[in-house]
Amino acid sequence: MLRVIGFGPGGYEYMTIEAKKALEASDLIVGYTVYTDLIREYFQEKEYYTTPMKQETERCRYALTQAREGREVAVVCSGDSGVYGMASLLCELAGDEPGTTLKFIAGVTAACSGGAVLGAPLSHDFAVISLSDLLTPMELIRQRVALCAQADMVLCIYNPSSRKRKDYLKEACDIILQYQSPDTVCGYVKQIGREGEEAVICTLRELRETQVDMFTTVYIGSSRTKKIGNWMVTPRGYRYASV
Amino acid sequence: MLRVIGFGPGGYEYMTIEAKKALEASDLIVGYTVYTDLIREYFQEKEYYTTPMKQETERCRYALTQAREGREVAVVCSGDSGVYGMASLLCELAGDEPGTTLKFIAGVTAACSGGAVLGAPLSHDFAVISLSDLLTPMELIRQRVALCAQADMVLCIYNPSSRKRKDYLKEACDIILQYQSPDTVCGYVKQIGREGEEAVICTLRELRETQVDMFTTVYIGSSRTKKIGNWMVTPRGYRYASV
Repeated sequence: MLRVIGFGPGGYEYMTIEAKKALEASDLIVGYTVYTDLIREYFQEKEYYTTPMKQETERCRYALTQAREGREVAVVCSGDSGVYGMASLLCELAGDEPGTTLKFIAGVTAACSGGAVLGAPLSHDFAVISLSDLLTPMELIRQRVALCAQADMVLCIYNPSSRKRKDYLKEACDIILQYQSPDTVCGYVKQIGREGEEAVICTLRELRETQVDMFTTVYIGSSRTKKIGNWMVTPRGYRYASV
Repeated sequence: MLRVIGFGPGGYEYMTIEAKKALEASDLIVGYTVYTDLIREYFQEKEYYTTPMKQETERCRYALTQAREGREVAVVCSGDSGVYGMASLLCELAGDEPGTTLKFIAGVTAACSGGAVLGAPLSHDFAVISLSDLLTPMELIRQRVALCAQADMVLCIYNPSSRKRKDYLKEACDIILQYQSPDTVCGYVKQIGREGEEAVICTLRELRETQVDMFTTVYIGSSRTKKIGNWMVTPRGYRYASV
């Protein structure tokens, strides 16, 4: 059996009880090296198969082959395995050779774990967009950012930057500034739930001038998002509806 | 101390280890009756304070008052407390009278838990939109649906229906049909992780004719979303990038 497991931001306590049990029930744990390193200390008596980035297909094929041979295999992802994770690729590869049982085990995705650090940025409609153009044409990303800003939805941005894409967040901010005020409340969280966690709340104008790394999740508020104390909050509207 | 806890779709094993510990550490558990009923059997030796829908403000004020008096209080929500949950309202109310420590504990939101039942519908950019117009003008909801469909993003719809809003999903489908093919792959999951869980994959044309209830989460694919076996899958693009 092949279990596809999202284990949340990384710490033991951020995984679900279901994920913990599924990892305990697995013999072989397969994943991207950076992610398996986050959980290795909690599941020591296991065989690990890890590969670096850009070897996703090879890694997933290996996991499927091992599962077909009758092993209990876990493919792990940080966050939720269905959000920019391995779940879709595994469905595609398994679809070629039916007969492997796949079970998907949901986890807390960065939008939610980072949101909890900032307060409540996602309490109304929101969009999740990755700025990585490794697998998506940049023009489509730009279009999506523009339309979501026009829709006045909160934007949660994954993969806001990397060594080769230093200016992508700035470019996204410039697009959003065509529709939203420079004073729009924004926030970002580095290393969610990990050592070095850091959360910042700022304005869209300030965010534009900020250099973040690839382990950062960025939140761009809607016109209704507010800073309350040290929290970034997008009100749902309960307050005035039910008093 | 006041902990704001999302416990996922409902079963014990779908909550994070952090949420379980936080509930164990609380004396008083506050929540909407339907949600507290989902976890009551696992945390029996606690005091509960529950109110029905539309009494969110009163319920949160009570929790804050109790926490200020020194009690260990948990406000619980299903899914993630930051996604259409109580986190934002608690920030607003706590902001009026600073001095209460709030801690937000993220959970698996329905987009992700339902996604895991369907396969991998959210493996590329997506938007989360609630069709409830109790607190949001219907015109804004319509606009958001239209812009996200135009952006060719997967749409995950919360609160797709209720007794008073039987036709809202049909209306949303009609808006999306202006931009997307009637053959767009869609799916929905009823009672995620609960007794009576049921998942269906269909086309946008079929979804338009479907009556769902308020305990259903709906997924409307992008132009790239596919049905593979019994899964709804939005490919990330790994397959062709890394072979």
